[in-house]
Amino acid sequence: MAPLIPRQKPWLVLLLVCLLLSNVAGLASADEGMWLFNQPPRKQLREKYGFDPSDRWLEHLQKSAVRFNSGGSGSFVSSTGLVMTNHHVGADCLQKLSTPDKDLVKIGFFAHTRDEEVKCVDLELNVLVNIEDVTERVNAAVKPGMDPAAAQQARRAVRNTIEKESFDKTGLRSDVVTLFQGGRYNLYRYKKYTDVRLVFAPEKEIAFFGGDPDNFEYPRYDLDICFFRVYENGQPLQPEHYLHWSKAGAIEDELIFVAGHPGRTDRLNTVAHLEFLRDRVFPQLLNTIRRREVLLKTYSDRGLENARRAQDDLFGYQNTRKARLGGLAGLQDPSIMEAKRKAERSLRQAVTNDPKLRDARDAWDEVSAALAAWAQIYTDHELYERGAAFNSELFHIARMLVRLADETAKPNPDRLREYAEAGLDSLKQQLFSEAPIFPDLEIVKLTDSLGYLMERAGAENPFVIQILANSSPAQRASQLVSGTRLADVAFRKQLAEGGKSAIESSDDPMISLARVVDGPVRKVRKTYEDKIEEPLRQAYAKVAKARFAIEGENTYPDATFTLRLAYGQVKGYEEQGQKLPPWTTMGGSYKHAADHGSVPPFELPPRWQKDKDKLALETPLNFVSTADIIGGNSGSPVVNRNGELVGIIFDGNLPSLVLDFVYTDHVARAISVHSSSIVEALRKIYSASDIADELVGMN
Amino acid sequence: MAPLIPRQKPWLVLLLVCLLLSNVAGLASADEGMWLFNQPPRKQLREKYGFDPSDRWLEHLQKSAVRFNSGGSGSFVSSTGLVMTNHHVGADCLQKLSTPDKDLVKIGFFAHTRDEEVKCVDLELNVLVNIEDVTERVNAAVKPGMDPAAAQQARRAVRNTIEKESFDKTGLRSDVVTLFQGGRYNLYRYKKYTDVRLVFAPEKEIAFFGGDPDNFEYPRYDLDICFFRVYENGQPLQPEHYLHWSKAGAIEDELIFVAGHPGRTDRLNTVAHLEFLRDRVFPQLLNTIRRREVLLKTYSDRGLENARRAQDDLFGYQNTRKARLGGLAGLQDPSIMEAKRKAERSLRQAVTNDPKLRDARDAWDEVSAALAAWAQIYTDHELYERGAAFNSELFHIARMLVRLADETAKPNPDRLREYAEAGLDSLKQQLFSEAPIFPDLEIVKLTDSLGYLMERAGAENPFVIQILANSSPAQRASQLVSGTRLADVAFRKQLAEGGKSAIESSDDPMISLARVVDGPVRKVRKTYEDKIEEPLRQAYAKVAKARFAIEGENTYPDATFTLRLAYGQVKGYEEQGQKLPPWTTMGGSYKHAADHGSVPPFELPPRWQKDKDKLALETPLNFVSTADIIGGNSGSPVVNRNGELVGIIFDGNLPSLVLDFVYTDHVARAISVHSSSIVEALRKIYSASDIADELVGMN
Repeated sequence: MAPLIPRQKPWLVLLLVCLLLSNVAGLASADEGMWLFNQPPRKQLREKYGFDPSDRWLEHLQKSAVRFNSGGSGSFVSSTGLVMTNHHVGADCLQKLSTPDKDLVKIGFFAHTRDEEVKCVDLELNVLVNIEDVTERVNAAVKPGMDPAAAQQARRAVRNTIEKESFDKTGLRSDVVTLFQGGRYNLYRYKKYTDVRLVFAPEKEIAFFGGDPDNFEYPRYDLDICFFRVYENGQPLQPEHYLHWSKAGAIEDELIFVAGHPGRTDRLNTVAHLEFLRDRVFPQLLNTIRRREVLLKTYSDRGLENARRAQDDLFGYQNTRKARLGGLAGLQDPSIMEAKRKAERSLRQAVTNDPKLRDARDAWDEVSAALAAWAQIYTDHELYERGAAFNSELFHIARMLVRLADETAKPNPDRLREYAEAGLDSLKQQLFSEAPIFPDLEIVKLTDSLGYLMERAGAENPFVIQILANSSPAQRASQLVSGTRLADVAFRKQLAEGGKSAIESSDDPMISLARVVDGPVRKVRKTYEDKIEEPLRQAYAKVAKARFAIEGENTYPDATFTLRLAYGQVKGYEEQGQKLPPWTTMGGSYKHAADHGSVPPFELPPRWQKDKDKLALETPLNFVSTADIIGGNSGSPVVNRNGELVGIIFDGNLPSLVLDFVYTDHVARAISVHSSSIVEALRKIYSASDIADELVGMN
Repeated sequence: MAPLIPRQKPWLVLLLVCLLLSNVAGLASADEGMWLFNQPPRKQLREKYGFDPSDRWLEHLQKSAVRFNSGGSGSFVSSTGLVMTNHHVGADCLQKLSTPDKDLVKIGFFAHTRDEEVKCVDLELNVLVNIEDVTERVNAAVKPGMDPAAAQQARRAVRNTIEKESFDKTGLRSDVVTLFQGGRYNLYRYKKYTDVRLVFAPEKEIAFFGGDPDNFEYPRYDLDICFFRVYENGQPLQPEHYLHWSKAGAIEDELIFVAGHPGRTDRLNTVAHLEFLRDRVFPQLLNTIRRREVLLKTYSDRGLENARRAQDDLFGYQNTRKARLGGLAGLQDPSIMEAKRKAERSLRQAVTNDPKLRDARDAWDEVSAALAAWAQIYTDHELYERGAAFNSELFHIARMLVRLADETAKPNPDRLREYAEAGLDSLKQQLFSEAPIFPDLEIVKLTDSLGYLMERAGAENPFVIQILANSSPAQRASQLVSGTRLADVAFRKQLAEGGKSAIESSDDPMISLARVVDGPVRKVRKTYEDKIEEPLRQAYAKVAKARFAIEGENTYPDATFTLRLAYGQVKGYEEQGQKLPPWTTMGGSYKHAADHGSVPPFELPPRWQKDKDKLALETPLNFVSTADIIGGNSGSPVVNRNGELVGIIFDGNLPSLVLDFVYTDHVARAISVHSSSIVEALRKIYSASDIADELVGMN
């Protein structure tokens, strides 16, 4: 591809996407779906691929899959606890272990011995052990005639209680998960690991080769991998399940499976809800993202150490910006919305025609009513409860401490969900994290977000004036960050142990601010929960019930950052009349660099430049497949029929960004690192044969 | 300065600024003011500096000063028509003369002979010849009892007529300028030059050394200069007035003057108007700027040619973003607003106390009423009339053609101001410009702005649907840009000559869109003119009259991109307890580069690296002064008491950004290139002794 020809993929791709959206209603025969492991797509797999996974096959994959609670997926890949994920998932840990002199995100890391493996600061991994349907118990807690506030309270109580009972009984992390937007409640039990040590990461130059310009693009040339090792009781874990390495890796047209944790989709939303996303949620979110991207970029440009401090956050904003822009482009495409409208009309007609589904008739209007209520508090909810007004880690620590004191003084059923008993350990893992906090960056971020608060809530708003304490955003941010002691973890622990009285008597300025803010903000949250969240759950539960009745239950819920099974084929596609191959090669990375003048972010790391001759250049580096994935799937293992690892998901292409709302396999593709290139790079470039041997089972 | 210590100037600086804002009412004794050349600050100069400029002195400076209509200032600096401005002002011309193989912005330019001087594509320079007060005539056209719409029409008619009469009589460009927000109307007559040839520009690396991070910062090390030569009848102009080069250049503490074209200030605004800027105008503008900055940055990052195409626009957005953020920080500072409130209360009290000023009593409320009307159409006005929905040069050409046909069919007094007879030549200079237009960049920009239209005006809005023609933004942008022939200047001329019938029968898709849009949009514009612009002018005229009565007429109007005289002293300042020197040296640039790892934008050009030894490193490179300047002053000559050129303005520091609203000389500083470094660099680094000799009068 000539570097000087600007690429206009988005519009062209959308032209193409539109051609195939006639079937957005119901399930297409394509490789659609982010399936529950307790409700796999047996029928689809049998009919299209003649494949019938055994329960053992499914259990093995499920228990080899790992969730990174920092936001991503991974898998066990050796008998001694080695976990593989993406570099950009591991980056959270890499960043927190870095110093001004040693930027691990940039230069990478390699532990030559077990002793050199470094414990991550606050990483928690989860492995899904089992799933229990608790829908009836959750819904039974909500009595007929309860108003939404009472229903919300009852539902929260029973969820907190179920989780606590499960945790007490099993010792496992226990989460009651909402599926089908409220149509089902499942109890997910996880084995939790917090002693996770960094083993290997390549340089960012090759992990994220092509940078933001190449992100969500294909052809691609990224070694986006990172290895950790899980320890238990100070010893490497010997997991019951781990994935075996495929000898050949992914092959064109073969059936592959992805086990990972897609973060969020909105395919089952009503059209009004999609319009709400299009008109309100996405534009506002994108404005905030762009604002912070520019803020962090200008901060970073001032010097190399600044750039190091902000890089992980900056990547996050850039990545989300590109992803959400792709989603918004889908929502702003009349042909997609028209297809959605058509499907909704048809479903509603079927509901109207069936007297047994009478209950569901008003559900769509109930969704709309809840959205109207949301619109009224949208800005306050975003600013205060979601924290857009306080873009500061120190503030969020302060608020967590204030709420922790308030909530733990209450009985478990009455607590805010995130302070329920069963989850407190995980919460404290974050609260007492030794991850570095940079006062200068905190001031920059807080200054900007307090300015945003003035813009959005009004500079003359008494609550805003109280928060600003009659200062400018810059003055106030400086007072707060310079004055607080919350950067000190011991101080945090002391406050947490002191409970309510310690918080109330604290004169720490950030704690004081969090106290001032929390009262009014809890009201906003309560409104959100009572008038929006609960009515939406109830309405969507009716829609789901009707949908099951009409379309059957052989389906999958929207993504919720819980474990899902996707499947598809390794398959190239056509774009602008050009055939794009199912895979790229390691050799192609050198050409790609040269085509872009070898300037960052198109510059290969020195090791790659030096050792080019050692590589089998025809080794596949990245490949594309039709599997149905979305953000959160990063790091998901890709396996073949034999359950052998053939690759690791790290991205989707631009056309895949509409998968938030509708599946298409015409040009939407998941992008993976090919297993062969991982072993090749470890052996030939990184002199890391020990790890390679561990992967392929030679030691 | 250590590069690894992040700098938190903005907040600290605002802390300092706040200390000295007790005197924002009336004129401080400090070096305040962007004075009219026909009403210079004689009293202030006499009292503070014992200096009494003669009429000849003033006339010489006025007629040596040059306005760059691309947005900036400059001056004649030789007897053979050499004009000096900033590199970042000349960049518009440099960009338009560049090709993929020869990026003049980046690599610079040097014409070794007159023959090598290259004509700019569409640059127009203006020299102010004389000023005539036409306030009475303009106001007399507005009869008592006229409603605002009629008043607006009458005022427009008389302004168009005055300009036409003046143009017919003198052949000079004639602009009726609104001063004091409507308190005065002056006729400015300019000599206009359109044969302007590029003579010399340094590399961007040194012209904009430090890039966006160093923009609006000090200490600074930029050779932000560019030379053009004005031709008339194919021969270099021998201007009657040009500035002589000072031998010593600017010296610490000496009195200096700046003659330039500050773009816009809002110091005389009512508090309600400042709040409107704070709450509505600035936040919305900044969102748009950040949006476009991110858009162009991602476009640029795809390849070097993309970066070249977008660089001038990208710089513009980054520059404006930083400037407006500084302004907004001032508006969001309670101490600044409180000082403004205090001053307004005191002025209004004086008005109330004086029966002769009865007329003015309601003026403040009238301003507020007009702003309330503005709020109602703000979004439509921004989207359609100001073109935020159509970020495309091709669209703006289309609209200009559509309106040109409509307007020139009307009698001159009835035309929209920008299509009045006297200004048509200048308008056509832009309309028929051969400046390159890049279809790929056009599609990217138009896609984004059509998406913005959907967000702001509503995706289901019938007018929006009509504009989008039932396509997605990306599809529509692609159709329009690929389908239009307006990139061809001959086609534009043909349409312009064909008048209304040519426009109406054209099937060019961009012309069709401009036709569809123009009807509804003219209504928005009319509302703006009748309900906002005219009432504001009338109300502010009353405020101005009252202010003159109470505070005297020895004052200056807000900036309007017309020629002004500022003055001050060459003077360092203190920041974060650190003394900043009045000037930096050429040698300092090498240290500054090294302190930042010599990576872009802190990398000196190869020539500077190579010829360091030849330089007198102690030569002053940049200096700061207390002169009252703002955006638009870029390129303004700085002269001493003898009228000799001692420097050229290119920036203000961060604290100067509140000068939009209030003057302070405590830490706010104008930043200039020192005259000595210009000659030194020309001789020692660029082997351009001919130009240096021409400047110092040796040839």
